[in-house]
Amino acid sequence: MSGETPERGFPEREFENRLERAQFAMAEAGFNALLLTSEPEVRYFSGFLTQFWQSPTRPWFLVVPAQGKPIAVIPEIGAALMRKTWLDDIRTWASPHPTDDGVTLLREALREVAGEGVIGTPMGRESHLRMPLKDFKRLTDALGRERFRDASPMIRKLRMVKSEAEITKITHICAIASSTFEAGAELFREGQPLSDAFRAFKTKCLEFGADDVPYLVGGAGLGGYDDVISPPSDAPLARGDVLMLDTGAVFDGYFCDFDRNYAIGEADDAAKRAHDILFLAVEAGIAAARPGATCSDLYNAMRGVIAEAGGADGDVGRLGHGLGMQLTEWPSLTDFDETVLEPGMVLTLEPATRTVGSRIMVHEENIVVRDDGAELLTRRTPRELPMLTAP
Amino acid sequence: MSGETPERGFPEREFENRLERAQFAMAEAGFNALLLTSEPEVRYFSGFLTQFWQSPTRPWFLVVPAQGKPIAVIPEIGAALMRKTWLDDIRTWASPHPTDDGVTLLREALREVAGEGVIGTPMGRESHLRMPLKDFKRLTDALGRERFRDASPMIRKLRMVKSEAEITKITHICAIASSTFEAGAELFREGQPLSDAFRAFKTKCLEFGADDVPYLVGGAGLGGYDDVISPPSDAPLARGDVLMLDTGAVFDGYFCDFDRNYAIGEADDAAKRAHDILFLAVEAGIAAARPGATCSDLYNAMRGVIAEAGGADGDVGRLGHGLGMQLTEWPSLTDFDETVLEPGMVLTLEPATRTVGSRIMVHEENIVVRDDGAELLTRRTPRELPMLTAP
Repeated sequence: MSGETPERGFPEREFENRLERAQFAMAEAGFNALLLTSEPEVRYFSGFLTQFWQSPTRPWFLVVPAQGKPIAVIPEIGAALMRKTWLDDIRTWASPHPTDDGVTLLREALREVAGEGVIGTPMGRESHLRMPLKDFKRLTDALGRERFRDASPMIRKLRMVKSEAEITKITHICAIASSTFEAGAELFREGQPLSDAFRAFKTKCLEFGADDVPYLVGGAGLGGYDDVISPPSDAPLARGDVLMLDTGAVFDGYFCDFDRNYAIGEADDAAKRAHDILFLAVEAGIAAARPGATCSDLYNAMRGVIAEAGGADGDVGRLGHGLGMQLTEWPSLTDFDETVLEPGMVLTLEPATRTVGSRIMVHEENIVVRDDGAELLTRRTPRELPMLTAP
Repeated sequence: MSGETPERGFPEREFENRLERAQFAMAEAGFNALLLTSEPEVRYFSGFLTQFWQSPTRPWFLVVPAQGKPIAVIPEIGAALMRKTWLDDIRTWASPHPTDDGVTLLREALREVAGEGVIGTPMGRESHLRMPLKDFKRLTDALGRERFRDASPMIRKLRMVKSEAEITKITHICAIASSTFEAGAELFREGQPLSDAFRAFKTKCLEFGADDVPYLVGGAGLGGYDDVISPPSDAPLARGDVLMLDTGAVFDGYFCDFDRNYAIGEADDAAKRAHDILFLAVEAGIAAARPGATCSDLYNAMRGVIAEAGGADGDVGRLGHGLGMQLTEWPSLTDFDETVLEPGMVLTLEPATRTVGSRIMVHEENIVVRDDGAELLTRRTPRELPMLTAP
């Protein structure tokens, strides 16, 4: 149903490639080391995959030198799992620590690999420092604040283009979620509390092979919904409602991110028309997603279809984004993002339109940019708004 | 099976109480405003609950003034959901923004409520700044870096003591996960890939009423497992394995965090003995968890049982921790945490011991501290290591 399950993890060659590209970019940027603190950054260079990041207690550090493999500076609790990765140099401390939660160990590792040189760490758009500010201050005070520079542009550039092995994982989770959405007629029904519909979706998605469904939002209402980020209420689905579920399910650490709309029993013309407009907007996005086009080109292609059809702006801030180890990644499909598309970029196309009053409808698919244009990773939503009728 | 489902959300009085306690603490600390950026901090004062935080793209801000309700400074995409909370003052911008992702709006809100005064923001242990470092620098450069002080101690103090409404939610999710673990005999079996056992657990937990199972780690092996943070392998459960699952399931934004061990078909003496030691260590923890005792008292009570029985230290860094809106919260059950227990604190008791070679076993229960001692929130694991035999 969702094809062969791809092998978990990556061959060592994948990490060697990532590191090689990173060290090339570091040389260009004049960085003697990278300091990484967040889950996707650490995982990208090490393969370290665990839900233990749910716990905010302990900081985790990865130091990428200008030459040679990354050095892990991590709490002892993660040592056994980190030893299973391709890394050799794993330095640990007993965390939590009363006075020094890895800062001295990290400082020494940075001194060792960067000397008096420049240390890149992500500071820009969509990045977060995942260590206490006070500890970061201790570190930068000790090493020299001016030596720390923003590594966001280079990390963004590296991670935006996915390897075939990464694309295989995203393809797999897209197929699993597509199958789950296609089972909508057996999962969702009039009178069912929205929260039960969500639960049914998650359970089916796990059954079909998802590791997790960390993101499931949506809504239901006559002619659309009020927003696209709400948890489900317990209100029952009513005849005429448009039901939307938007999921970020995960396989082996890689996300899908797309939605489906359904009409419960019947749909009014506004909802049907909005679905039509959104379908066509995604078609335009697919057609525009070729190497050399920019994100703003994609935005304008989709926005143009909506405007031409007289659809009102849905105003969710952008019409799609990058996708991979995180539910949303750079770039953004906005009128100001001039990122040039390259083969291997994985994107969501996510047009939205206002329907009645403040209500909106959103539709989303996932694609990968190939040499000759977009390849769909999701199985396309039906042309007509799917209708769920009682059996 | 897990009792009545508690009402979702909180009455407005809950947030008034939190705010009142916070503003009292702010006055004591000399803070004219608080700046909060992370999911639990924003939710604690607003009730804003969404999985949209999975997306790292947009920053979200909450400003707590010395008097009056908090001010939300958030991306437009969250406005509809934030308007459903008890907040009145919701300021939004179209995010992502090409040059100013909320920084100017936030700066003005802080100027308005703090004047030239002190701004507290979490900078200490277990805290993270959830906005790009460069944007934080712009903000602090504009307002004066020296005006930003660490608010971690006061936030920690507020959030460590749970309200009855919070305890009700944690109790509910503990009951759901307890029921799921008690169904272990139908969920887990010899020959089953560990990944399937995980999937079966999650599905059952959702069926029993969990909103989500964002944390499920564990392992299986002869006489124990190598670590406690790994995702599942596809290796089949073998006769004699000790299987452990440790879950952080969620109801209405509140976590449980505990584990269960099972023997697959048979168990060796080392595993039985370790289970026995850990059971007794938790008993000692329960007995010691009285108002006025310190976290190090709890640590020593549990550590003492393990040492007395000749059990080897499991070395996961601590023997339990706080629990609530996050999988792990302050305090830590370590020999250096002198936090004094108060009624309303929710804790995990999590002793670990080494069994054979590098293998360990861990056992965990959840309690709330009451006036007269600990109240168990989880249904206690059986005294003897549970044995799963083929039906």
